[in-house]
Amino acid sequence: MKGIYAEILTIGDEILYGQITDTNSQFISAALDKAGIQTVRKTSVGDSKEVIISALKSAAAVADIILITGGLGPTKDDITKKTLAEYFGTTLKMDDSVLAHVEQLFTSRGRMMNDLNKAQALIPENAQVVHNAVGTAPGMWIEHEGKVFISMPGVPHEMQKMINDLIIPKLRGHFKTPFIIHKWVKTINIAESTLAQTIEAWEDALPPHIKLAYLPKLGQVRLRLTGKSEDEKQLLGELEAEIQKLVPLIKEYIYGYDDDNIESVIANLLVQKNKTISTAESCTGGYLAHQFTQLAGSSRYYIGGVVAYSNQIKISQLGVKPQTLDEFGAVSEQTIIEMAKGVREAMKTDIGLATSGVAGPDGGSPEKPVGTVWVAYATESEVVTKKLSLTKDRMLNITLSANYLLNLLRVRLSE
Amino acid sequence: MKGIYAEILTIGDEILYGQITDTNSQFISAALDKAGIQTVRKTSVGDSKEVIISALKSAAAVADIILITGGLGPTKDDITKKTLAEYFGTTLKMDDSVLAHVEQLFTSRGRMMNDLNKAQALIPENAQVVHNAVGTAPGMWIEHEGKVFISMPGVPHEMQKMINDLIIPKLRGHFKTPFIIHKWVKTINIAESTLAQTIEAWEDALPPHIKLAYLPKLGQVRLRLTGKSEDEKQLLGELEAEIQKLVPLIKEYIYGYDDDNIESVIANLLVQKNKTISTAESCTGGYLAHQFTQLAGSSRYYIGGVVAYSNQIKISQLGVKPQTLDEFGAVSEQTIIEMAKGVREAMKTDIGLATSGVAGPDGGSPEKPVGTVWVAYATESEVVTKKLSLTKDRMLNITLSANYLLNLLRVRLSE
Repeated sequence: MKGIYAEILTIGDEILYGQITDTNSQFISAALDKAGIQTVRKTSVGDSKEVIISALKSAAAVADIILITGGLGPTKDDITKKTLAEYFGTTLKMDDSVLAHVEQLFTSRGRMMNDLNKAQALIPENAQVVHNAVGTAPGMWIEHEGKVFISMPGVPHEMQKMINDLIIPKLRGHFKTPFIIHKWVKTINIAESTLAQTIEAWEDALPPHIKLAYLPKLGQVRLRLTGKSEDEKQLLGELEAEIQKLVPLIKEYIYGYDDDNIESVIANLLVQKNKTISTAESCTGGYLAHQFTQLAGSSRYYIGGVVAYSNQIKISQLGVKPQTLDEFGAVSEQTIIEMAKGVREAMKTDIGLATSGVAGPDGGSPEKPVGTVWVAYATESEVVTKKLSLTKDRMLNITLSANYLLNLLRVRLSE
Repeated sequence: MKGIYAEILTIGDEILYGQITDTNSQFISAALDKAGIQTVRKTSVGDSKEVIISALKSAAAVADIILITGGLGPTKDDITKKTLAEYFGTTLKMDDSVLAHVEQLFTSRGRMMNDLNKAQALIPENAQVVHNAVGTAPGMWIEHEGKVFISMPGVPHEMQKMINDLIIPKLRGHFKTPFIIHKWVKTINIAESTLAQTIEAWEDALPPHIKLAYLPKLGQVRLRLTGKSEDEKQLLGELEAEIQKLVPLIKEYIYGYDDDNIESVIANLLVQKNKTISTAESCTGGYLAHQFTQLAGSSRYYIGGVVAYSNQIKISQLGVKPQTLDEFGAVSEQTIIEMAKGVREAMKTDIGLATSGVAGPDGGSPEKPVGTVWVAYATESEVVTKKLSLTKDRMLNITLSANYLLNLLRVRLSE
């Protein structure tokens, strides 16, 4: 089975200056991936003729399909079309269907066309027009020496509509593409290296057309299995069988699959088990509450929270005893237990969560250095506490503390 | 003045599959730009030895500096180091300083090292270590045939710290770069087009080596003046003189300069005026509190907050009257006034802020559609309220509501 390979070429000085995030190439490669076309390289270059021509040559040497975005606007710094014509040794011609479309767009917006706008209907002699339903710059499809070159506008919503509605179907028809399927297994609270050792024998026994990747992210490691085959149904079965073998090896660390994320998994568990929750935060300062409330529908289970930044608020709003704070300090097991129980009682919820720590960069002491965080989970019948030793970075300490507590909550809800 | 050119090479199958947005290359090119180094190309390739070697060759042909991210993890799919050693015709050696650092990180986190972790201390013979203060994978600096190759981990916060603290200063020392200085003037509550018209004459009179850019962001427009020169002191003076001319034209809209952000400006005002603050949040659900508490030192003025997601919490924690909620609803001027006053009294602060709205995507009604948000600011002597009509997007409604209220606070504190 021969693979079909693509290169994505994004053109624009603003990308090289670091002034915009290039989201176009991600969108295109995800769409190609779904269609069984493998992106082998992405290249970003500036608005310069020589550099673009050199990038086109290099792309044609490694890929069957070259997808180009950007540089199609009406202003002087947009030179993609002229450069394409030069690359193919041809000239630009006026396309009547594009001209009519541009005129119609201007009329409907009550604007006058100038010569720069008319020039948008110029395309290389060897190009087929790919209709831009929502803008003035046409897409182009050019077949040349066995390769397909596709040029698209850089405006994301124009490019996206073109890719989904016209280009992917046309590519599927032009090439006979294999199926590429991804399955995800998402783990938490296990280090990447420990995970790799635990599943090494399983990984080594994977068939050659199924590949494994580890993607770490803030205390989580996501495993991605990628299979490639001409038989979609058989491939799905094989991937499923591999996951069946994997799960028993690391069951306690798996929080979800495929599109799951930890927040949505917890949301589903809370709804299923009909539990309500409240939060008492010191060092995480509202971030934990925000993790719950950013999800649509969270008012079904998230009742409320207290950001108890000063000790006085821990006493008045959460009922922490002044002598507990005096004797053990705000960052202590004793205080965190009273916070978690206190918020649960004040808000009349099934579950109370609490955080208290030294987020940094200042405020550490020899006994409680920056990064020391206590977290707690309380229900009517139990309290679970944990002392974490995190980093020197304030924002990282905030997110890692919240993540740890979210996973603790997930584990208790799953039991 | 000869330019210094860089290529950025990001490695990882996940980029080619379109599964992640490559934000690393934007961060790196923006940092290079500030240091007077021009990015001429960005290339993303997969975890494949042949492809990486070909990309390295191609990069060395166009750039003085090749910056590489990704593929440094402890698992089998991470092959950057082996590939670099092969490219330079050398082998991997164990670096004792890195090994000691990895051991120390594991010890401090109470974890055991395995062989995969130890292998993180292997680096090519010709590489200098670039210390990774916040992770186990070392950065590498390799000089080869007049070019500098820099390899960094792909984890964004590790790479960012390395770039800012170590690599940019080292590059500045190694190459003689021209001075590029950016100065920022940050405005809020004025539309980009109105701003452009107001300062048009000033902009047209700027000297050719000073350029202006408009960068809009969530209700703010940041103006960036960029000057380039071999004489740093003279350039600084010229930039300062231009800003002196600009300020009187738009004084009421300027909230800060350079590294200022609205949160830090407010923090300084609260400290200067010796005021304390508390928050009562419904629709923003902890996000507003997080905007205050993410800043180091915020405990000096931020006392605490209540996330009053359910009406019951608005009553029990904030003293909102049940009849107010019955008669006017939770999203109303009457309720928001009682929330702001209530949190101020409960937390004994000078200022109380409150939010209540329909964040969406569900929960709207003909009278109060999704995007309807009330915000309030209360002190002992005054209450200011405002009704906002925002978007259909939940997360955008949360951030825009918090931003509006932060600016209202800034204006009151500045008077």
